[in-house]
Amino acid sequence: MIVVNFKTYPIDALSLARMCEEVAHQSGRKIVVCPQITDLWIGHEVRISVFAQHVDAMECGQSTGAITAESVKKAGGAGTLLNHSEKRMRIADIDFSVQKCKLLGLTTIVCANNASVSTALTSLQPDYIAIELPELIGGDVSVTTANPGIVSDTVTRIRKIDVSMKILCGAGIKSGRDVAKACELGCVGVLVASGVTKAKNPRAVLEDLVSGLL
Amino acid sequence: MIVVNFKTYPIDALSLARMCEEVAHQSGRKIVVCPQITDLWIGHEVRISVFAQHVDAMECGQSTGAITAESVKKAGGAGTLLNHSEKRMRIADIDFSVQKCKLLGLTTIVCANNASVSTALTSLQPDYIAIELPELIGGDVSVTTANPGIVSDTVTRIRKIDVSMKILCGAGIKSGRDVAKACELGCVGVLVASGVTKAKNPRAVLEDLVSGLL
Amino acid sequence: MIVVNFKTYPIDALSLARMCEEVAHQSGRKIVVCPQITDLWIGHEVRISVFAQHVDAMECGQSTGAITAESVKKAGGAGTLLNHSEKRMRIADIDFSVQKCKLLGLTTIVCANNASVSTALTSLQPDYIAIELPELIGGDVSVTTANPGIVSDTVTRIRKIDVSMKILCGAGIKSGRDVAKACELGCVGVLVASGVTKAKNPRAVLEDLVSGLL
Amino acid sequence: MIVVNFKTYPIDALSLARMCEEVAHQSGRKIVVCPQITDLWIGHEVRISVFAQHVDAMECGQSTGAITAESVKKAGGAGTLLNHSEKRMRIADIDFSVQKCKLLGLTTIVCANNASVSTALTSLQPDYIAIELPELIGGDVSVTTANPGIVSDTVTRIRKIDVSMKILCGAGIKSGRDVAKACELGCVGVLVASGVTKAKNPRAVLEDLVSGLL
Repeated sequence: MIVVNFKTYPIDALSLARMCEEVAHQSGRKIVVCPQITDLWIGHEVRISVFAQHVDAMECGQSTGAITAESVKKAGGAGTLLNHSEKRMRIADIDFSVQKCKLLGLTTIVCANNASVSTALTSLQPDYIAIELPELIGGDVSVTTANPGIVSDTVTRIRKIDVSMKILCGAGIKSGRDVAKACELGCVGVLVASGVTKAKNPRAVLEDLVSGLL
Repeated sequence: MIVVNFKTYPIDALSLARMCEEVAHQSGRKIVVCPQITDLWIGHEVRISVFAQHVDAMECGQSTGAITAESVKKAGGAGTLLNHSEKRMRIADIDFSVQKCKLLGLTTIVCANNASVSTALTSLQPDYIAIELPELIGGDVSVTTANPGIVSDTVTRIRKIDVSMKILCGAGIKSGRDVAKACELGCVGVLVASGVTKAKNPRAVLEDLVSGLL
Repeated sequence: MIVVNFKTYPIDALSLARMCEEVAHQSGRKIVVCPQITDLWIGHEVRISVFAQHVDAMECGQSTGAITAESVKKAGGAGTLLNHSEKRMRIADIDFSVQKCKLLGLTTIVCANNASVSTALTSLQPDYIAIELPELIGGDVSVTTANPGIVSDTVTRIRKIDVSMKILCGAGIKSGRDVAKACELGCVGVLVASGVTKAKNPRAVLEDLVSGLL
Repeated sequence: MIVVNFKTYPIDALSLARMCEEVAHQSGRKIVVCPQITDLWIGHEVRISVFAQHVDAMECGQSTGAITAESVKKAGGAGTLLNHSEKRMRIADIDFSVQKCKLLGLTTIVCANNASVSTALTSLQPDYIAIELPELIGGDVSVTTANPGIVSDTVTRIRKIDVSMKILCGAGIKSGRDVAKACELGCVGVLVASGVTKAKNPRAVLEDLVSGLL
């Protein structure tokens, strides 16, 4: 699975999602897109899953300005990222949101900033953990060039808590070779952002990434 | 002007906005609706102004999960509430958002919890200040039954900073008589929420409120 | 172990700590006190452990207004509470603070609001987890009168992650019998607050609690 | 007046405060020091004013981990910074804290990040506004070398709200000449931090700054 986070770049979300849809259909692989909350309606337009980037841990009603899980579902969302590095959450709120999404049938991908936090968040039983290991963030290091133990040790720690937890690699992914390496090390896919959305040729980048999936 | 905050109640935002649109056209008065962020697209469907309930003080790009002013504008929003009592903001962030909205042509209604804060926020030059005076929150007190000095003193303090600031009464509004009283005391309109959205007959309540406008 | 959280009540922290010290010495049991941050210096005056109520996840230096772990240690603190229900933290920040405290030799007690979060936080390897189970908060329910499965199930889940994690019961403790029951169910002690600090006779309450320790 | 913010640098707060005390007495000028919250007790040891760096907008009692204004006063504090750039606050909370400090007899210095926010915060009637103008932050620009209009325009805007508001210059101060210039432009003093605390010879730097006071 490839998850593409559109962040809040000023892009045409529907066009980008349609391109992702085409690559998904041609390759037969699963691609998920995460547009801005105001673009979530594209979930009604494309036949791939559209996820929110965040939901607030608030009940419906007296919560002006909040992004509720209920509104994400109604708007066409099939799931959500939680605790992204640009939107860190309190643990009680991650737990609340994971439980609420579960009740509503929304898939959750919880981001984690290191091995310890990844392991901890596994106990909250989200659908996916996206590991953003500090050794892989920034610079020229990728999953392929880094010490493979960095990823595999984290996978091992997570598997001790939940042997079937699905893990996404959320950092150090620059090419299909990195995707293949991440899958080899125990991940089921990757979470990417500007590598695709800001590429000169997003389709070519995405096709390359998809080619690395097992 | 009547501003109706839909909060995050599980309602059919388009139906409610269409009703508001009808009352606006029949009465010739201005009504603004503030649906949840995922319902902001109704701004393309109705001929009254649709505002967001909040925007984050973030630039576009590396701000996963944020509600940017740019996305609000693109989605069909004509403005936004800021600093609502259920979504309090840091003052540097209110300033940032007011300035950003100004550049984008979005109207800002900044909420304030008492006379001092109302006066302070006036210096940030939003389009409207919505005053939520503590003496008018909860209980059975309304603008009509309360000491009129509570509202008029706040209006006077705001006017000393900016003689033409447009003021909305954001608490103590239960009927058209309260709207009329608020206008008499210097407000140009009101900000209401559950009084309309949770009413058995929202249209009747809204028509009554509108009847109080000067 | 009995941990007494002084919260921010306007009390004479040194007198209260001295009383706790006396009860600790008479009973031979361990009592920890958590005064306000400005009272942490009492750690130099009493021979029981004095903990902070919170530390911010900030490095020393450019962090005006923060409570750093380093300052807690220097001021006489032997440890700290983290993620108290009145001061919830982001999980990345709890992880940061637990690691920092470990390096500095400060003991950490991480609070958790239910069984899932308790289990998750165990993976961050603090010294203690204080479980504040929702079924035991407020009302007349105590550990003794509640379904014992509520506590023992949580203990079991935590033990699956870390068989030797030390668990404190942070809710439903009103008497020595509750302390005894909590210990019987797998806890090594309790975390209490107003039950002691606001009691007419704090010493009598504390002596009763201590009598329940195994 | 010179206000020295110690931030959270690992320094000997009492020694540094004593040095400031000596310079204050030799020069006959007012110097205020702002140590970390755990060092606030030095207020009982020196005969210059000691301020906190921040207080939380919380009442005493059920606010574990908070820094209350009451605790600052009891610990020896004579006042506090509020809304420092490293600890930004919501406007409702700044208002709450300013009012609470006023009741307790604590002096407030509210920091502001630009001319608009400075003007707004003046309406909350703190004792001082510390202006941190963006044009003066970082780089080699100081009050002396910058366009004087940057400071004087802000002073003028503040004076329109409150003709007697005391203004501190919180950025662009590197020498006594800058202090003199800031005073010439309408400030009553300056707020400095690492310029003094991290200097090789803090006393020499402080004596130079003091020499610029009118």
